[in-house]
Formats: sequence, structure tokens, C-alpha cells
Amino acid sequence: MFAQRMQNLSRSFIRDILAVTQQPGIISFAGGLPDPALFPETALAQATTEAAENYGSALYQYGETAGVHELRNWISSHLSDTPVTSEQIIVTAGSQQALDLLVRVLINPGERVAVESPSYLGALQALSANEARLEAVESDEHGPIPEALEALLSEKSIKCFYSVPTFQNPTGLNYPMHRRKALSEVLEKHGCWLIEDAPYEALRYKGEALPSMQSLLPSQTVRLGSFSKIIAPGLRLGWISGPKEVIQQIEKLKQVTDLHTSSLSQFIALQFLMNGELPNHLERLKQSYGERLNCISAALQRDLPTATFQVPEGGMFIWVNLPQGMDSYELFEEAIKQRVAFVPGKAFYTDETKRSGMRLNFTNSGNERIEEGIKRLGTLLS
Amino acid sequence: MFAQRMQNLSRSFIRDILAVTQQPGIISFAGGLPDPALFPETALAQATTEAAENYGSALYQYGETAGVHELRNWISSHLSDTPVTSEQIIVTAGSQQALDLLVRVLINPGERVAVESPSYLGALQALSANEARLEAVESDEHGPIPEALEALLSEKSIKCFYSVPTFQNPTGLNYPMHRRKALSEVLEKHGCWLIEDAPYEALRYKGEALPSMQSLLPSQTVRLGSFSKIIAPGLRLGWISGPKEVIQQIEKLKQVTDLHTSSLSQFIALQFLMNGELPNHLERLKQSYGERLNCISAALQRDLPTATFQVPEGGMFIWVNLPQGMDSYELFEEAIKQRVAFVPGKAFYTDETKRSGMRLNFTNSGNERIEEGIKRLGTLLS
Repeated sequence: MFAQRMQNLSRSFIRDILAVTQQPGIISFAGGLPDPALFPETALAQATTEAAENYGSALYQYGETAGVHELRNWISSHLSDTPVTSEQIIVTAGSQQALDLLVRVLINPGERVAVESPSYLGALQALSANEARLEAVESDEHGPIPEALEALLSEKSIKCFYSVPTFQNPTGLNYPMHRRKALSEVLEKHGCWLIEDAPYEALRYKGEALPSMQSLLPSQTVRLGSFSKIIAPGLRLGWISGPKEVIQQIEKLKQVTDLHTSSLSQFIALQFLMNGELPNHLERLKQSYGERLNCISAALQRDLPTATFQVPEGGMFIWVNLPQGMDSYELFEEAIKQRVAFVPGKAFYTDETKRSGMRLNFTNSGNERIEEGIKRLGTLLS
Repeated sequence: MFAQRMQNLSRSFIRDILAVTQQPGIISFAGGLPDPALFPETALAQATTEAAENYGSALYQYGETAGVHELRNWISSHLSDTPVTSEQIIVTAGSQQALDLLVRVLINPGERVAVESPSYLGALQALSANEARLEAVESDEHGPIPEALEALLSEKSIKCFYSVPTFQNPTGLNYPMHRRKALSEVLEKHGCWLIEDAPYEALRYKGEALPSMQSLLPSQTVRLGSFSKIIAPGLRLGWISGPKEVIQQIEKLKQVTDLHTSSLSQFIALQFLMNGELPNHLERLKQSYGERLNCISAALQRDLPTATFQVPEGGMFIWVNLPQGMDSYELFEEAIKQRVAFVPGKAFYTDETKRSGMRLNFTNSGNERIEEGIKRLGTLLS
């Protein structure tokens, strides 16, 4: 009755967990949600009023498929470390749509795509829904291993490599410079596209920013950006930047997919940015999330002494490995009964046999709840 | 380099025309745009403020894939003539996204879909982009001919029939009751899905509303609704209603496609509706657009006496047939030089040999510009 592609698409485990975690009293490390208490609501309300004054009925009218021109300009000149023109930017309904469009533009059913292991679940699903075949690239503590990528690209025909080089979802990993270079050299050699998903880059709590993969390999990289983590996800605003010929194809597909992204959301974001609100808002976010990262790290060390983890330098997630032989899915089922939630690691692997990891989000709750939640996990584990 | 499906997808002729018609001084009957002067800007600004008071940070946070629950409730209880529950509603980023999602859920590459002739260009493109094979159903003055549909469904395996039964785009046609019944009987007999695209129904300027096709064939109909024509297109809000098993599949696909539709847009629309603004706003629209329809009809009769047309009872378009042998595309090229634009009929056919029709939109300009534009066309034609 339904199309073939629907058979590849199970309901998202994470979205199902999120339904559970809506219950009052549950402490959730499961989602990837920003803290609503930190939304810049006053600045957004002001931007909304001013956008209506400045742009009038354009807020409510149909707009260009590629997005509001001034917003594309702003993105190209302020949010990219690679020289790109506004013609190399297309505004999307969040970076999830960016990914879906890009996959549809690049990949025929049955074609192979390389992914990190573990990888962002929403990407695995978007790829599967579009009938791509997933090929996992083995990782070490610095990210995907260049030799593993090299072996894969030599052996099989791979159209593109999907990766989150900075504060990866789910591991929080930040590829160091030597790894970025080595990976981009492998990709260049094989003429393989890189999809660089970069929603977390602005959320750096320590250390120095590294160059994007796009800046190292601009002709083969399509980069996905998002306002969800730095302004507000409810606006559903992201963007793609990349070589013009790819952007043009995406524009053609987006036109039939939803005509264009919400004019209202775009003009509000534009006004917010032009009002100069972003730097201060980012400072507040980094201050607050950075403290929570310190808090969860200390709590994990105290209450889960048998588990191991690397403290990330930014982003929204910390990845915890349970003691050898423990299954995080079994822990999850017990944890829910104790009213604490996280995402079991198997959700992020193409091969679900890897079960010792778990992903903890530390941005959605304050320190007190973080400490209480980790304490509950610790009790379960001991 | 790009996926196969991209070869089926040319840039939209209409979107290209729209670029031309942005030039100052051009009188455009080409787009499908509502008049921005009639947007309920004050009511929307008030709804925005009140929504922020009532729903707080939910306006800016991630939301459920199917849409804001209260909005789905409102749609199911106020905007449907068929008994549906809120579980049978999913909110989409406009009805263009609704169509794209639905086609991806239902149709495998190469499967056949029946379409009206002429048909909505955006639908032809969404179908082509998803590699459906289009089968045109011949029409008469009442819409698609049931015997032609019957012959097609008997001869070939057809997964669904896409149609706009009320104030069709591009013809303005409203299928009469006997035609609705006859078509739904044919579809029922063959177990063929109906996609009922219904963005214009509320814009009726004369005559009585007819039952939707969905109400005649609820188990096989998926209906697409839109707030673009009755509130504002810039919000990018539409919905799908249909059998629960189809809605569930669409929800799964939408989840990977863009997670969910803009929370902000949804809460603003919800507040606007709960404030009771829609009935008065619709009255204003119908009053104004109804006058413009009278104006363009009179002008056509006066200035294009050799052309023929049926005056529609509602919607946004009037379809004009040029005298035998005249090619509306040739007229279009001359018209642009005289600074007046419309859409040549061939854009709406799977078979571009039908060239005598043209589509005129009458909602985007006031009466004075309508009269001046038709006068320019008349001069060209005589």
C-alpha cells in the first residue's frame, strides 16, 4: 500500500523517548533540547515588532525559495569561516530539512553513504528514508579514522560522507586539526562529497575554535548550519552553504518541497541578528551550558565511578561508556522506572550490537536536576 | 553527479515569471499571490503578542511532529466537512509540503498517478520530482470526465488521482455535485487513492458550497488544506487530513524531513483562530476578491471579445481561451514587452501542445490595475 522507502523508516526511538520524558517528575538527559528558560524571548518579541515595522507585509507573503536575501547575506558574511557569497547559501526549515534535501539531490536509492560510528540518529534516518546504504567508518578518540575512510572509499563506490566534526552528536567529540586535514585529504583524493553538519559550533565552552572542514575542502563540502541551537528551534531555521551548482539543485528541489521557508521566521531572525543580539545571547548560553557541563562531569565522576567519558569542549552532549559488558538499553529500562532518562547508545549505530555507550544531554535542565538525575543513575549502576 | 530524480525537475516556469513580474510597472496576472494589502496584519500582531503570553517558550521550542495539538483539534472541528479526529490531522509547512510528503509516502519511482488536464503546476512538479509517471485525465466544462478516468483506471495500474475539485488551479472550475459523485464512484470501484487539494474552498464569491470529495469517499481520500489563502502564506502552514494509517506514515516521514512545522507560526495561527478573527477576515477577502472577479470578467468581455472564458464562483484564477489557433505563449512574450504578465496555458499540461489557454490571477491587484492590464492585453490581441 505504501511506497518502498517507508519500510526503511521506523519511528524515531528518540522521539518516542521524548514522549515518555514529557511526563512530570522525569529528569531527562534524553533529548537534544535547549533550555527554554534561556530563549531570548524579550529580544525575539522586540525583533518581531521591529521586523513588522521594517518589512511590513513581506513577513506574511510568499517569498523566494532560496530565502530572504538580507538573511542569506548576513549568513554568508557573519556565520561562515569560508569565503562564500549569498548565492552559495539557501535557507531551510532547520538543518534536518537541509539534510533531507541534500540527500535527495545527491543520492539515488541503493547508493552508499559513509557515516560516523556512532552517528546522529536523525541523519541515519534521513539517509535510510531516502534509501541510501549506510557504511560506518570506525572511530577512535579523535573521530573517524582516516585509514578506515581510505579503505572504505577505495573498496566501494561512496557518494558522500556525512559527519559532525565539531561537538559531535552523540559523542561530543571535536575532531582535532590533524584529523580534519587527514580526512579532507582522503575525501579530496577520492572526489567524495563531505556533508559537514555544524549546528553546535558556536557553543564552545573552552579551547580554541578550529577551522571548519568546509574551509579545508570548499569545492567538495556542503555545510549545514542551524539557528535552532543559537536562537530558537521553534523558528525552524537552518541553512546550507556549498558550491553554487549544488545550491542551485537544492533550490530547485526545495521549490517543489515547500516553496520556501517561513517568511515570518526569517524576518524575525534577520531583525534579531541586525539588532546585534546574537553575541550577548551566545555569551549567556555558553556561560550557562558551560557550568552545566562542569556540573554533569563532576557528578558523573562522583556517582558513576565505574563509567568512563571524555569531557567535550562544547555542544550539548556527553557520551558515557558503561563498564565492559553492561548494556545501556537494559540500564535505560531500569532508569525510566526511577524517573530518569537518557538515550541508549545502540540508537546511534548502523550495527546495533554496540550497546555499552549512552548519550546524556546537559543543556535542558539546571544543575540541581542534573545532579539529582546522575545520582539516580549512580544508584542504579552500583 | 546528482541523483536521477533531479533530471525530471526543471526550474518552475511560474517562479521564473514571478522574478520578471517583480519589476516595477508590470501589471501581473501571473502569480497566485494574495493581495498583501488584505493581510490581517493588526490581528496577526495581536495574536503574536497574546500567543507569547499564553504559550510562553513553547513558541520557540521544538514541538511534536504532527503539529500543535490544539491547532489540530481546531482544524478537525472547524475546517472539515467530514468527521475526522485530531489524530487524522497533521500540520505541514504549507500544502506544497503536504503534497510532497504524501507523494513520497504513496508512490514508488515509476508508478502512475492520474492528474487533471490542465493541472496545478506545483503538483505536476512535486510528482515529477518524486519520479511518478503522470497520466492526464481529459476534462470537460464540469471537470475530469468520469468515463475517461474509468478507462484509465481499467487499463493501467494507477496509485492515486490528484485533483483540485473546488475552484481549480488553473481553470477556476468547481466540479458540480453529479461530477463529484461520479468520480468518487469510479475511484471507489478501483480502490484508487484521491488526493483532494483544497486551498481555495473558503474563497467562494457566489453560489452554495458543495460537499468535499473527502466526505463522499472518506476511506480513500487524503485532503490537503492551507492557511496560505485564508490567513497568510508567509506563515507556511497547511495540513493533511485522511485515514489514520496514512497520517501515521506521513508523520514518520515528516519527522525525518523537517522534525515539525514552525512552532511560532502554529501558535500564532492558533491564537488568531481562537480570537475568532477568521470569519470577519474571510468576509473582507470575499468582498474584495469578489469585486475583482466581477471587474476582470467585465474587462475581458469588453477588451478581449474574441476570447472565451467561464466565470468561476470562487478562488483566485480565471482561465481564458484565446481564439482558435492562437498561441498564448506567443502572446505572453509580446505582453511582457507591454508590461503585463500572465501564465501561458501550456505550463499546466503534461502535454505542452495545448497552447490556446491562459491563466489570469485576479487577487493580487486592485480593480484599476486589473482594468489597465486587460486593456493592454486587448490591444495586443486586436
